Amino acid sequence: MPIVELHILEGYTSNDKQRLGTVLTDAVRLVVPAPPEAITIMIHEMPTDRYYRGGEQRMGAPALEDPAKVVRAFLDAMQARQLDQARALLADGFVMQFPGSPALTRLEDMVDWAKPRYRFVTKTFDGFDTMQGAGQAAVVYCRGTLSGEWPDGTAFDGIRFIDRFEVAGGKITKQDVWNDIAETRAQT
Amino acid sequence: MPIVELHILEGYTSNDKQRLGTVLTDAVRLVVPAPPEAITIMIHEMPTDRYYRGGEQRMGAPALEDPAKVVRAFLDAMQARQLDQARALLADGFVMQFPGSPALTRLEDMVDWAKPRYRFVTKTFDGFDTMQGAGQAAVVYCRGTLSGEWPDGTAFDGIRFIDRFEVAGGKITKQDVWNDIAETRAQT
Amino acid sequence: MPIVELHILEGYTSNDKQRLGTVLTDAVRLVVPAPPEAITIMIHEMPTDRYYRGGEQRMGAPALEDPAKVVRAFLDAMQARQLDQARALLADGFVMQFPGSPALTRLEDMVDWAKPRYRFVTKTFDGFDTMQGAGQAAVVYCRGTLSGEWPDGTAFDGIRFIDRFEVAGGKITKQDVWNDIAETRAQT
Amino acid sequence: MPIVELHILEGYTSNDKQRLGTVLTDAVRLVVPAPPEAITIMIHEMPTDRYYRGGEQRMGAPALEDPAKVVRAFLDAMQARQLDQARALLADGFVMQFPGSPALTRLEDMVDWAKPRYRFVTKTFDGFDTMQGAGQAAVVYCRGTLSGEWPDGTAFDGIRFIDRFEVAGGKITKQDVWNDIAETRAQT
Amino acid sequence: MPIVELHILEGYTSNDKQRLGTVLTDAVRLVVPAPPEAITIMIHEMPTDRYYRGGEQRMGAPALEDPAKVVRAFLDAMQARQLDQARALLADGFVMQFPGSPALTRLEDMVDWAKPRYRFVTKTFDGFDTMQGAGQAAVVYCRGTLSGEWPDGTAFDGIRFIDRFEVAGGKITKQDVWNDIAETRAQT
Amino acid sequence: MPIVELHILEGYTSNDKQRLGTVLTDAVRLVVPAPPEAITIMIHEMPTDRYYRGGEQRMGAPALEDPAKVVRAFLDAMQARQLDQARALLADGFVMQFPGSPALTRLEDMVDWAKPRYRFVTKTFDGFDTMQGAGQAAVVYCRGTLSGEWPDGTAFDGIRFIDRFEVAGGKITKQDVWNDIAETRAQT
Repeated sequence: MPIVELHILEGYTSNDKQRLGTVLTDAVRLVVPAPPEAITIMIHEMPTDRYYRGGEQRMGAPALEDPAKVVRAFLDAMQARQLDQARALLADGFVMQFPGSPALTRLEDMVDWAKPRYRFVTKTFDGFDTMQGAGQAAVVYCRGTLSGEWPDGTAFDGIRFIDRFEVAGGKITKQDVWNDIAETRAQT
Repeated sequence: MPIVELHILEGYTSNDKQRLGTVLTDAVRLVVPAPPEAITIMIHEMPTDRYYRGGEQRMGAPALEDPAKVVRAFLDAMQARQLDQARALLADGFVMQFPGSPALTRLEDMVDWAKPRYRFVTKTFDGFDTMQGAGQAAVVYCRGTLSGEWPDGTAFDGIRFIDRFEVAGGKITKQDVWNDIAETRAQT
Repeated sequence: MPIVELHILEGYTSNDKQRLGTVLTDAVRLVVPAPPEAITIMIHEMPTDRYYRGGEQRMGAPALEDPAKVVRAFLDAMQARQLDQARALLADGFVMQFPGSPALTRLEDMVDWAKPRYRFVTKTFDGFDTMQGAGQAAVVYCRGTLSGEWPDGTAFDGIRFIDRFEVAGGKITKQDVWNDIAETRAQT
Repeated sequence: MPIVELHILEGYTSNDKQRLGTVLTDAVRLVVPAPPEAITIMIHEMPTDRYYRGGEQRMGAPALEDPAKVVRAFLDAMQARQLDQARALLADGFVMQFPGSPALTRLEDMVDWAKPRYRFVTKTFDGFDTMQGAGQAAVVYCRGTLSGEWPDGTAFDGIRFIDRFEVAGGKITKQDVWNDIAETRAQT
Repeated sequence: MPIVELHILEGYTSNDKQRLGTVLTDAVRLVVPAPPEAITIMIHEMPTDRYYRGGEQRMGAPALEDPAKVVRAFLDAMQARQLDQARALLADGFVMQFPGSPALTRLEDMVDWAKPRYRFVTKTFDGFDTMQGAGQAAVVYCRGTLSGEWPDGTAFDGIRFIDRFEVAGGKITKQDVWNDIAETRAQT
Repeated sequence: MPIVELHILEGYTSNDKQRLGTVLTDAVRLVVPAPPEAITIMIHEMPTDRYYRGGEQRMGAPALEDPAKVVRAFLDAMQARQLDQARALLADGFVMQFPGSPALTRLEDMVDWAKPRYRFVTKTFDGFDTMQGAGQAAVVYCRGTLSGEWPDGTAFDGIRFIDRFEVAGGKITKQDVWNDIAETRAQT
């Protein structure tokens, strides 16, 4: 049965509303054991002159960028080693951590750190998981497998990885990476 | 501004409704850049005789167990090696994968597989992330650090880990584990 | 999709609300080609101190008796020739018409009129149809077959009939009857 | 007091909405003893991108044709013996029954069956009653009087009739007819 | 928290809706101790073909003129002794009373009555208060200070006054005036 | 037509809700030219566990005392010269002004100031007008006539007066008084 009515100020795109339809449906499903088809979302949009708080009209703010999209753009730029594009997606105070690495704050440091570990690496994605975190940031997980070449030029693939990102205000504030590279090297 | 009205059948506990208040607020925040205090949730409960679908009264189903609670109970049981209690939380078709392990379906196999790797291991949690997955299952991530003893009795700690669980109908269907154990061993 | 929210004053029984759930579902189905299961009815009841018109609290009136029930009770009383009970269900100004009869206003006149036509008659019901009429009255149709004995004592059965009733304020104001008695007699 | 809010997908015509306003008002009046002026209907239309079920946008279907209009068109075509036009309004499996007739499935058979009974017949309508049936079909009653000529060319009029139709998906599935023709003939 | 949803027929201007936003917020604040920012007003407008009472569409009436604006226009016209313009704002049956005056019904009489009391007077406004009265009329208070010249040509200013107006249907039905003119004269 | 739905936290008394019903009706009437009977107010109360802001349950605050009641209690106490009771109804920073008086902050000063003016005075009320002011305070007007005795023991009555009060948080912050005492004395 659950029926959700969302009242928002006018100004959201069809895509924003589709995203709201999806996240609200998913939110209900976390608690109520209803099949998705039984969950109805209705979005009511209020033009500015029909919504008042404290007797005053209010302006809506543009929707947040989909955090998974931000992460995907960052990963694509990093894989292509387009550091400027990748950097444009980072918030001040960004910090990243890889298996065995110290906390890194600059993409160049990460590139340097990775150099003795592999010539290049390509990610094949099995899935993204996105949610709002307890604080201000959204959390995006992406997981899949790595393929690439070891420093000696031999190829590898099928190595499991998972990345956890925090995204606030459309910028990435934190990246944590886990993978089986060391496990794979230990077995070879 | 966003105001969410949720209509559900009567029968949910105060705790269920608090969970709904939280997940709906978080869902809106993924799309609308409003501070949490600006997001209002109103839950309207319908007694059975005031809700009809197809002209017929419908019964509400009890709320789903919080998936993070299920995961936490499983992790506690596994750490204490109370395999029966842990097993009770698993769905048919459960499968788990650890760094370097094959796909495992029985907890005993996992215990055997782990034996040559460490004497015991204790998890310190940095955080849980819960969200509805695209399919039927909820997804729970927990991350933190491992401490314990290597097979030779020397201690280790501060090794990063992350677990990804899928939980459907209150039972765990899948566990995927990543950690820096191999990385740590390679460095020592 | 259609979702109907009905706001009424508190005081209706569960049975009244079930009837409202049914008639509202049926009303929507007359216009919208949705399967019944896709039509949701939510009834919101307002306690007296939460509903104001003209700034004043209002009292709800008890639900109308189901007009089909009134008709059924009348037909049962008539068949048993319990004229007093039947008469109690009639409004002032009640008028009835049978095939070939004049307009009759008293049940006794109807009984007299029927005497030369059949010794007794029993109705087997195929169905009742109830709807609100354009004016104040509800309209109830019942149809089925008649069985009984002709004045000469021979039996008949399977003769089609249909009755149309108007019911206002729980009382019957009008009855119109059609049947195949004359057709049957003409064929025999 | 009763206030009805109907939420439907966008796409209905003003005429469709007027019909919904009428049938919902009538539905409430069957149960609640409120004068029509006290019954308020508000129809809320949802554009496709503001309504989600299972997280997916849904398309509304065009409104059903008014079943009484379908019946009226059929009766007009039959009276004019425009059998093709009449036949276009019939569903597969259509069946009709007249006083003394067998169950007929083809209009031609009905015409043949009627020939020895009257030269022609014209209907004067006293009223139509429409409602949703318990199954898929709407039910339409029309009643009034017949005039025409007997096979011998003499005229008749004022003969009561009532037709009951079932209409599903804009097509007539069933017609049942009662009238006083035999009664009238018996009396002459 | 208070959230007010107002359903009105379509046709009100943005300014009308702003006025509704303000008066509804103020109304809630008279009873609920919430800061204005915590009070939300949502105005839902119904196009004519989506609102039915008694199954019939209804036309909305244009908004009432702001009663304080009517009063202000009257006071401006009176101060400029544009009696025709002022008179156009008066309802039939208008009556006014000044300190020490009889009940006056014609503006000319008021002008005559005032002549021996002051050569002219100018109002400086400290504030207007507007509210709906118990009957049909709105009540407007305006208060401030008077300046002008006594009949002997000496100037005065800073004399407190308050006017109470009743306004119905956009016309002034009643004016009552209090001021400190006599008090001031007694002290000089 | 206007229909107002008010959503508030549970905990208001029937009397509070009646007051809300009245002030919301009156507020609408200031803008929409509908007769009171055409204005419907529905109050929806939310139990604490069904209302969330920022994902957290909120507590409702008790209703404000009716400002006109506070004023009436103050006027009754003053007339009876029960200064302690009257003083208990005053806010810090209270200030009052009478015709010809300076701004007074203490009730004793007002009593002293009045002594040479009249032996005692009794108010007969013609009406109270209450509204929310632009700031935090509600505004209450009361008007009517004064009767009493002049210092020389002669009686007076029928002298018009009007008081304007500001009331915030249940306490009076300001009283302004106008009357025809000086006018009356000048005429005698």
